[in-house]
Amino acid sequence: MPLPAALQREMADLLGDAWRTDDSERLAYAYDNSRRLALPDAVALPTTTAQVQALVRACRSHRVPVIARGRGTNTTGAAVPIQAGVVVSFERMDRIVDIAPGDRCAVVQPGVINGDLQTALAAHGLFWPPDPTSAGFSTIGGNLACNAGGPRAVKYGASRDNVLALTAVTGAGELIHCGTRTTKGSTGYDLQRLLVGSEGTLALIVEASLRLTPTPVARRALRAIYRDVDSAARAVARLMAQPVTPSMLEFMDASAVRLAREVGGADLPQSAGALLMIEADGDPAHLADDIDSLRRAASGDGLVALDDAADETARAQLWAARKALSPALRTLAPGKINEDVVVPVSRIPELVQGVQQLSVECGLPIVCFGHAGNGNLHVNLMYDPADGDQATRAAATMSRVFALAVALGGTLSGEHGIGLAKRDFMPTAITAPTLALMRQIKTAFDPDGILNPGKLLPP
Amino acid sequence: MPLPAALQREMADLLGDAWRTDDSERLAYAYDNSRRLALPDAVALPTTTAQVQALVRACRSHRVPVIARGRGTNTTGAAVPIQAGVVVSFERMDRIVDIAPGDRCAVVQPGVINGDLQTALAAHGLFWPPDPTSAGFSTIGGNLACNAGGPRAVKYGASRDNVLALTAVTGAGELIHCGTRTTKGSTGYDLQRLLVGSEGTLALIVEASLRLTPTPVARRALRAIYRDVDSAARAVARLMAQPVTPSMLEFMDASAVRLAREVGGADLPQSAGALLMIEADGDPAHLADDIDSLRRAASGDGLVALDDAADETARAQLWAARKALSPALRTLAPGKINEDVVVPVSRIPELVQGVQQLSVECGLPIVCFGHAGNGNLHVNLMYDPADGDQATRAAATMSRVFALAVALGGTLSGEHGIGLAKRDFMPTAITAPTLALMRQIKTAFDPDGILNPGKLLPP
Ligand SMILES: Cc1cc2nc3c(=O)[nH]c(=O)nc-3n(C[C@H](O)[C@H](O)[C@H](O)COP(=O)(O)OP(=O)(O)OC[C@H]3O[C@@H](n4cnc5c(N)ncnc54)[C@H](O)[C@@H]3O)c2cc1C
Ligand SMILES: Cc1cc2nc3c(=O)[nH]c(=O)nc-3n(C[C@H](O)[C@H](O)[C@H](O)COP(=O)(O)OP(=O)(O)OC[C@H]3O[C@@H](n4cnc5c(N)ncnc54)[C@H](O)[C@@H]3O)c2cc1C
Repeated sequence: MPLPAALQREMADLLGDAWRTDDSERLAYAYDNSRRLALPDAVALPTTTAQVQALVRACRSHRVPVIARGRGTNTTGAAVPIQAGVVVSFERMDRIVDIAPGDRCAVVQPGVINGDLQTALAAHGLFWPPDPTSAGFSTIGGNLACNAGGPRAVKYGASRDNVLALTAVTGAGELIHCGTRTTKGSTGYDLQRLLVGSEGTLALIVEASLRLTPTPVARRALRAIYRDVDSAARAVARLMAQPVTPSMLEFMDASAVRLAREVGGADLPQSAGALLMIEADGDPAHLADDIDSLRRAASGDGLVALDDAADETARAQLWAARKALSPALRTLAPGKINEDVVVPVSRIPELVQGVQQLSVECGLPIVCFGHAGNGNLHVNLMYDPADGDQATRAAATMSRVFALAVALGGTLSGEHGIGLAKRDFMPTAITAPTLALMRQIKTAFDPDGILNPGKLLPP
Repeated sequence: MPLPAALQREMADLLGDAWRTDDSERLAYAYDNSRRLALPDAVALPTTTAQVQALVRACRSHRVPVIARGRGTNTTGAAVPIQAGVVVSFERMDRIVDIAPGDRCAVVQPGVINGDLQTALAAHGLFWPPDPTSAGFSTIGGNLACNAGGPRAVKYGASRDNVLALTAVTGAGELIHCGTRTTKGSTGYDLQRLLVGSEGTLALIVEASLRLTPTPVARRALRAIYRDVDSAARAVARLMAQPVTPSMLEFMDASAVRLAREVGGADLPQSAGALLMIEADGDPAHLADDIDSLRRAASGDGLVALDDAADETARAQLWAARKALSPALRTLAPGKINEDVVVPVSRIPELVQGVQQLSVECGLPIVCFGHAGNGNLHVNLMYDPADGDQATRAAATMSRVFALAVALGGTLSGEHGIGLAKRDFMPTAITAPTLALMRQIKTAFDPDGILNPGKLLPP
């Protein structure tokens, strides 16, 4: 069903050449990093808030879906227009509006690339904590909409922990102002943190006031190798219970270590059953002490080796094992399901052991690594998509991984979000009355259900 | 209008002696620290979640108001049953359910006193950051419902920044589970931070999983005296733009300094136009360096004196000026309106100068002090409540203080909340479409408007 002609005309008038309906443009905005694909009816590239509001109002009056888009790097299908409609790409709303160092605040349009903001902030000795690996090509709007994190979150928090205020257009076409440019506030309901992680289903973010942190001057890394996952997990709990919070605390399970060694060529002992990358940052004069504290906490039963990188070259060498991992994974199988479940830190051993058991049962390799300090592990299930039987087993196993994470007191996603990929698992993680309430909140923001329909909430 | 007999019977059956309708008990739960007073029809002292849920469902079916209560220490009338109904006091749900140091998490019932939790956590080398001055006699449920803060919030955040998961009973009588015991999550809408600061108007919190922080081993204080507010405020901006975040950063304006000197007997120079109390905490081996960094940032044009407390005795002496303040205030006038507006840190000078101007115009003393690092100042307007003209001028001036804070990009309350006292100012701080959305969210949680009616949202 094509777009109503009246809407077409109204949008062409409003947006001029920023309203696109030709096939090649529609195709360019039809997919995201989930590799799902669905053609939108049109693509809009607004430059002002007024345009966004007018667009949403017009689409609402015609009951046409509106799908916000940053750069389409999300992995869950969250930006795919599965019910067609209008993709609103924020690529032209990419201005850094203000940087106020004394307020530790930056005001940005949603289309600003995370990495570009970090570059601008560096000049002021500040940074915005969320550091997804995609920072070089994902947007602040997309980061906020997914509650994106990254390794630094263990010390500095994810997107939701680093937002002060948002301006947004709801599905009702209303412009709302949530929060203030202050680090504290008890003035009504907290709508800005509600919008963070809502994946474009409640409102389109048109401006964000972000909470900044002064850049630590120096950093230093440790690599700790353990006999088994249990020993490594006990070390994670010790590391998190003492006062020096690591600025990164990354985990690799036995399969990940083996891959990094055998395929990636990393220099790791045969006896390595698990690995932790531990980093501290801060004042250079204090780093040696901090690293000592982390060393002590990392040490204990099951520790096989503990390497300290005194400088950046050595640091890069230690990280080589982790870096070797992603390309090495591809040698296991052509296809991969990568989910980012999260559990309380103390339940990591049960998660990893449970996943290893599932790998044996389904006869497919599963490799776990990720942000141990947050209990947020990437579970990579490797299979051949061309083999129908493998694909079926892979999907069935992933649903058991989700069930395991939930049974351990965790949940479906730590930072990637739900989108389309995990939508149907929501009832396994969220109780029925809680899910019903989420639906009612969706209705309050978006009475006609035009914003990113079919995402996050199961039908 | 008395409670329906059917509800009375049902509650007496459910709660036994924890259902109170005698006058003396009703009076004991009729007021809070705002000194407003309104008698409830009954008081309930539940011990289980099931009782809370049964109570809310029964009250809902009879359209009877339900007012959650911690210990009534809030200053805004938030716990006063202005439309009568049932006060639900959580004083018997005061169990610390679990402390998990490796997960940096404590699970508590809502009636646990903040100070009791801190004592229990100290044994594990952990603390829960919110530190209202009322910590010794306010509850975790009340802290969460108000988004309470305190001086430490500048480094460690307020209540909302330190909550992982909440279990709550909505006004519809549904039991909801919001969030998980993990420090990260992107699984649906963030309902737990929405409940924080909602002042019992959306749901009754029956269990909270709190985010803990390892206790810093040592602390050290500086006292910086400035010629004027401008110089002090520029120092605050410098302090917040460098990497050593102070663990406290408290401000006193000229009137506060004068009071502390002339009435409180604090040893402060005549030339003091503003004062900052600056604290650092952390590893004892690093404190000297950190204090040096803070000293450098505190230094600059307008600095009159900078005193360093090397030990706890000297620290107590430096804090004496701040401590002398509250009792000294009473000598100015018998009555006080104390509001806790918040502005971006860079706007503090304009706020303080504006307030001083208003003080001259209304002919009443106004004393400002508070949490400078968050831009959260306590504005104390002193007047004689027995003098009707003064009372009128005081109220009119406070509304101009609110307007000033909002005009400076700030808002009505940094940590005390809205309750009854600031409810009618909400439309000056929150735009109409945003307020309308808050009302719709209220309706989603509490369709019949039985939870703490008349609070937070203007009628
Ligand atoms: C190589 C690679 C590495 C990655 N590493 C990480 C990682 O370490 N940590 C992590 O958390 N994620 C990671 N991701 C996932 C992804 O990059 C993030 O989710 C990112 O935040 C998406 O940003 P985007 O601009 O591409 O948004 P998109 O993918 O375009 O959109 C994502 C969602 O946000 C919504 N949205 C976008 N803009 C707005 C707006 N202005 N208002 C409202 N809704 C909006 C969309 O509708 C959609 O639901 C990685 C992805 C890749 C490809
Ligand atoms: C001397 C003094 C100093 C103070 N200092 C500070 C300070 O430094 N910083 C600060 O932020 N505040 C401060 N306060 C204010 C007050 O102590 C806080 O707001 C505190 O959080 C209130 O806790 P309470 O248990 O007394 O809650 P109450 O006053 O009983 O209730 C407050 C609100 O929370 C709701 N509520 C209570 N329990 C629940 C629950 N389980 N579920 C849902 N809603 C609930 C009530 O309905 C009400 O709306 C101070 C107060 C005093 C008297």
